[in-house]
Amino acid sequence: MPLPADRYIRALLGSLYQGGVQHVVMAPGSRNTPLTAALTAEGSPFKVWLHLDERSAGYFALGLARQTGTPVALTCTSGTAAANFLPAAVEARLSRVPLVFLTADRPPEARDVGAAQTVDQVGLFGTHVKWAADLPVADESALEELVRYGASAGARAAATALEAPAGPVHLNLPFREPLIEPGDTPFGEVAQPIVRSPRRESPDASTVARLAAMLPGRRGLIVCGPESTGLPAEAIASLASSLGWPVVADPLSGLRAGSHDRSLVVDSIDALVRVPEFVAAAVPQVVIRFGAAMTCKPFNTWLAGLPSVHRIVVDPAEPSTAGWRDPDLQADESIAADPGAFATALRDALGAPGTDGAWSALWTEANAAAREALRDASLDLPEPFEGRVVYEIARALPDGATLVAGNSMPVRDIDSFFASTDRDIRIVGTRGASGIDGVVSTAVGAAAAGRGPVVLLIGDLSFLHDLNGLWPVRRYGLDLTVVLVNNDGGGIFSFLPQRQATPARFDAWWGTPHGIPDLAPGVELHGGRHAVLEGDAVEAIRAAIGRPGLDVLEVRTDRERNVALHRQVWERAATAVRDALAAVKV
Amino acid sequence: MPLPADRYIRALLGSLYQGGVQHVVMAPGSRNTPLTAALTAEGSPFKVWLHLDERSAGYFALGLARQTGTPVALTCTSGTAAANFLPAAVEARLSRVPLVFLTADRPPEARDVGAAQTVDQVGLFGTHVKWAADLPVADESALEELVRYGASAGARAAATALEAPAGPVHLNLPFREPLIEPGDTPFGEVAQPIVRSPRRESPDASTVARLAAMLPGRRGLIVCGPESTGLPAEAIASLASSLGWPVVADPLSGLRAGSHDRSLVVDSIDALVRVPEFVAAAVPQVVIRFGAAMTCKPFNTWLAGLPSVHRIVVDPAEPSTAGWRDPDLQADESIAADPGAFATALRDALGAPGTDGAWSALWTEANAAAREALRDASLDLPEPFEGRVVYEIARALPDGATLVAGNSMPVRDIDSFFASTDRDIRIVGTRGASGIDGVVSTAVGAAAAGRGPVVLLIGDLSFLHDLNGLWPVRRYGLDLTVVLVNNDGGGIFSFLPQRQATPARFDAWWGTPHGIPDLAPGVELHGGRHAVLEGDAVEAIRAAIGRPGLDVLEVRTDRERNVALHRQVWERAATAVRDALAAVKV
Repeated sequence: MPLPADRYIRALLGSLYQGGVQHVVMAPGSRNTPLTAALTAEGSPFKVWLHLDERSAGYFALGLARQTGTPVALTCTSGTAAANFLPAAVEARLSRVPLVFLTADRPPEARDVGAAQTVDQVGLFGTHVKWAADLPVADESALEELVRYGASAGARAAATALEAPAGPVHLNLPFREPLIEPGDTPFGEVAQPIVRSPRRESPDASTVARLAAMLPGRRGLIVCGPESTGLPAEAIASLASSLGWPVVADPLSGLRAGSHDRSLVVDSIDALVRVPEFVAAAVPQVVIRFGAAMTCKPFNTWLAGLPSVHRIVVDPAEPSTAGWRDPDLQADESIAADPGAFATALRDALGAPGTDGAWSALWTEANAAAREALRDASLDLPEPFEGRVVYEIARALPDGATLVAGNSMPVRDIDSFFASTDRDIRIVGTRGASGIDGVVSTAVGAAAAGRGPVVLLIGDLSFLHDLNGLWPVRRYGLDLTVVLVNNDGGGIFSFLPQRQATPARFDAWWGTPHGIPDLAPGVELHGGRHAVLEGDAVEAIRAAIGRPGLDVLEVRTDRERNVALHRQVWERAATAVRDALAAVKV
Repeated sequence: MPLPADRYIRALLGSLYQGGVQHVVMAPGSRNTPLTAALTAEGSPFKVWLHLDERSAGYFALGLARQTGTPVALTCTSGTAAANFLPAAVEARLSRVPLVFLTADRPPEARDVGAAQTVDQVGLFGTHVKWAADLPVADESALEELVRYGASAGARAAATALEAPAGPVHLNLPFREPLIEPGDTPFGEVAQPIVRSPRRESPDASTVARLAAMLPGRRGLIVCGPESTGLPAEAIASLASSLGWPVVADPLSGLRAGSHDRSLVVDSIDALVRVPEFVAAAVPQVVIRFGAAMTCKPFNTWLAGLPSVHRIVVDPAEPSTAGWRDPDLQADESIAADPGAFATALRDALGAPGTDGAWSALWTEANAAAREALRDASLDLPEPFEGRVVYEIARALPDGATLVAGNSMPVRDIDSFFASTDRDIRIVGTRGASGIDGVVSTAVGAAAAGRGPVVLLIGDLSFLHDLNGLWPVRRYGLDLTVVLVNNDGGGIFSFLPQRQATPARFDAWWGTPHGIPDLAPGVELHGGRHAVLEGDAVEAIRAAIGRPGLDVLEVRTDRERNVALHRQVWERAATAVRDALAAVKV
C-alpha cells in the first residue's frame, strides 16, 4: 500500500522531470527509501545512476550535467552522507551548473536531540546553493496540500537551478517510518506536474546602440573565459569578424575547437603575454569579456594593470544572484545579457564597419608564431615533457570527443599547448572553485552522458584524491581514457615562490610526493587497464579511445625538470614572437 | 624577511599550543603557505601530519584527537579543499571531539568576484562548529594589535573546542600575496601566548542530596552510552555497586573493558531485549543515563516505551551549547554535570544503602546466560559468521589495544558479541553522525597516536568509501590491522523492511553490491598486505597485530545468510535467557 510520502514525492519528482531533470545520481541508504522506491519504480521516467561515494557522486553529477546540458538531481541518506555533497555544491555554484540536491532527513522530532545519523541538514550548503528548503514530512491529513506543494517545490527547484546563472538548489526531505510498505508501487501518472517556462530577454537596445556607435575603429579584444556549457562560438566569432578584433580564447570557452570562423582566435596567449615586446605593442583600447576568469593568470594580471582600457563584462547573471565576474576588479561596464543574444544584436547593429587590419594582424601573426614555436620546441625535446602530452592528446582526439582538463597543471598545459582546431572537440573542466578534488568523477560523469569518447588529462594527486570516482566505470560499462601525468606530487608548486623561499622544506610540505611507487593497483581495483607511456603516445591514446572500458595511460615526469622545460619552450616561443613582430613592422 | 602574517600566525599558533593543541594535520596547497611555513619551521612545537585528501584528513584528526584526548588542528588551502572538511566537522560536533579548523582563504577583495579557488568560506561549516571567525588579513600598519588578536583568537579557539561539550571550531585565515619571503624563519619565541584555565564545576549539591534520598531501594539501571574519550568507568562502577544497579554498557562507553568492577556490567543487552519474558520482568523504576544514545536500537525503543520510569540524563553540556542527549524523548530529568564528578558525589552522598540482590541477579544472570549462549552458538556455526569475527578479534586483542568499530553492522556486531573483559582495551567509533565515511581514517588517526596496537573492524562499502584514508600508513610507517567483512554490499539493509517490500529491486538499490571482485589491489596501492581469512582467525589477527605496517584481513560472508545466522544465534540466546529466568525464579 502506498504511504502518504509516496504521492507527495512522486508529485515532486514529476515536476522535476517536467522541469528538465532526466538523470538522478543516487547514493545508497535507508532513510532515502521513499525516494529510491519512487525513482526506481516501474514506469519511472528517470535514468538513475548508483554511486557508492557521495563526494564522487556530486562531481559525477556535475560531469553529467555539463555534458548533457540538463539539470541533474542527486539523492542520499541522512547524516554525513549529505555533508559529502558540499564540495560539488560549491563547484556547481561557481561554475554555474544546474544540480538539484535531494537529501533525506530524519523527521523534526529526531533533530538535535542526539539521535543517530541525524545532523543539522537545514541550510547545510549555506550560501553555496541558490535556493534551499526544508520540506514538511508527509502527513495523511494534509495530503492533498502536500501533493500540490511537492509539485510546486519540484518545479521551483528545477527552474531555479536553470535560470541564469545556473546552479545548485537543495531540498531537504524528512521522512518518518515506515519508509516503505510491501508491494511494488509503480511510478504512476503524476497528476498535473507544474511547468514553468523561462523568461526570454533581449539585450538592452540602447546599450547595444551605444556600443555599436562607439566600438568601430577602436583596437579591441574579445576575451572568452571558461563557461561550463561553452560560449556561443558562432555568434562571438561573427561579432569578432565584424569588428576585426582578436578573440583571446580560454581552452574551456568553447571557442578553440569547432567549425566556427577561428581566423581571429588567439590560442597561445600564455606564451604571448610573456613577451614584453608583444604586450607593449598589443595594448587594446576596449575589451569585451564573456565567460568566467581566464585560466591564464599572467594575461589577467596584464589586462588588469593597463591604465586606460574600457573593459566590458557581459554576464547573464544579475548581481542579486551572486554572480559577479570581475576577479581582477577591471570592469568599467557590466552588461547583464545572454552572451549569444548580445553578440548577435551587437553585430547586427554594427553593420559592416571598416576594420583595422594591422591590429588584428599583430595578434594573429604573433599568435601563429608562438603556436608553431611552442609545438616545435615541445616536439623537439628529447625527454618526457608535460606540454607535449597535450599535443599527443590533441592529435589523437577524434571528432565528437570531449577532453576533460584536470586542475592545477593540466588545465594550464592545455591552455598553453592545445591549438585551435576545426574538429568538434569539447574541452571541459571544473573551474568554478578550481579544486583538484572530484576531477575523475567529472570525467566519468561526462562519459556516462554517452556523447562520444571522453579523455581526461589529470595529475597524480588529483587522480588519487578521487580514485573512488572510477567506480561507475565498471558498474555501468563506461568508456574512459585517462592520461595520468605522474610526477609524484604537486607539480604546480615548483613554479611558485615557495620553492625558492624554503628549499630545505619545500619538497616535503609543498611538493608533497605521494610516495606510491606504483599506481597500477588503483586502476586494477576498478577493472581498468594501466600502462606507462614512453616515447610518442599518440597511437597509444588512439588505441585506448578505440577500446571499451577504462584505460589509464601514465606518463612519468620530473617536477623540477618540468619547470626548466616549460621555461625553455616559452623562451623559444618568445624568440619566434619577436621575429614575427619585426615582420609585421610594429 | 618575515612577512607581517608570520608574527600574527605564530602568535595564533602559540596560543593554540598553550591551549593544548600538539598535533596538526595538514593538507597541501599554496594559499596556506604562511601556516605551512610556521608549522614546519625550525623550533615549531607541533607534530605535523601531512595528508593528501582533506576529507580523510578530517577523520584522521578525529581519530588522533579521540586517542590522545587532545584537541587537534587541521589546515588546508582555499576553495573546495575546505569544503571537504565538512563531514568531519559534523561528526566532531556530534561526537564531541575538539578540532580546530584553520582554513586558508583569499583576501576579502578576491571574494565573490569570480576569482579562482575562492569560495565563500565564511561560516562554511554553519551550525556544525561551536565557534567560527573570519580573521583579518595581516596588515603591517596594525601589526601589534593583530599579534595580540592572533594570540587571543588561538586561545579562544582551543578553549572553545575543549569546553564541554567538546567540539570543532573554525578560524578562516585570509592571506594576501606574497605568501612567503626567502629565508627560513624559525618558529621563534611566541611572546606571551594567552593561557585560559577552564572552569571546574561541582554537581549541584541539592540535586545530589535529593537523588541520594530518593534512589536507594528503587530498582534502577545505569545506562552508559557511547562517549568519545570514554566514560569514567571507576566512578560509575562504584556508584552502581553502592546502588546495586546493573550497568547496561554500550561497547563505546568505556565500561565493557578494563580493571574497574565489572560485576554489574550488562554486555549482552542486544540479545536480552529481544526476549519478551526478560523485558517483562526487567522493568526498572529509575534509569540514570550517561553518554550518548545507545547503539542498541531495540533497547532504546523498549526503554522509551516504558510508562512509569523516572529517567535521568547526566550530561556535561548546557542546552545553550547545542548538546541535548535525549533522542527517544524519554528524559524526565536532565542534570548538567560532569559524569565522573556526579557519580562520585552521588555515591558519597548515598553512604552504604541496602541493595536489592534479586533485582541485580535478574539482570546479571540473564546477561551471563545470553553472553554464553551467544558465544557458543556463534562458535558452533559451521560456516563464516560476522558475529564470530568479533569473538576472534576480542581473543586476539592484547592489553593496551584499541578496537575501532566501523558503522552500520560492525558496531552492532561488537555491541552484540564483544564480551566484557578485564583487559585494558579501548573501543572507539564514530557515533556522532554514525556515517560510514571516514572510518578508515579514524582508525589510521588512532594508530598515529602511537598508543598500542589498533585493530579496525569495517565493512566493504565503508572501506572503499575511505580507501584514501590508508595513505598515511605508508607515509608515516604506521601499524594497523584491518578486519574487513566483505559481503559485497550494505549488509545492514538486509535486516530492514525494504528487503521484504521490494524484493525485485532490493539488491540493486539498497543492497548495492560494489561488484569489485578483488579488494586486494586497493590494499596493495597503499603498501599493505592482504589475505582472505578462512576458518579460525584468531592466530591470523594476532600475527597481524604483531607485524609492523598494514594488514587487511578479509572475511567473506553472504548478506542474506548473515541475517539468518544472526536470527539463529539470537534464538539460542533467548532460550538460554528463559532458562536462566526460570532458575532465578522471577
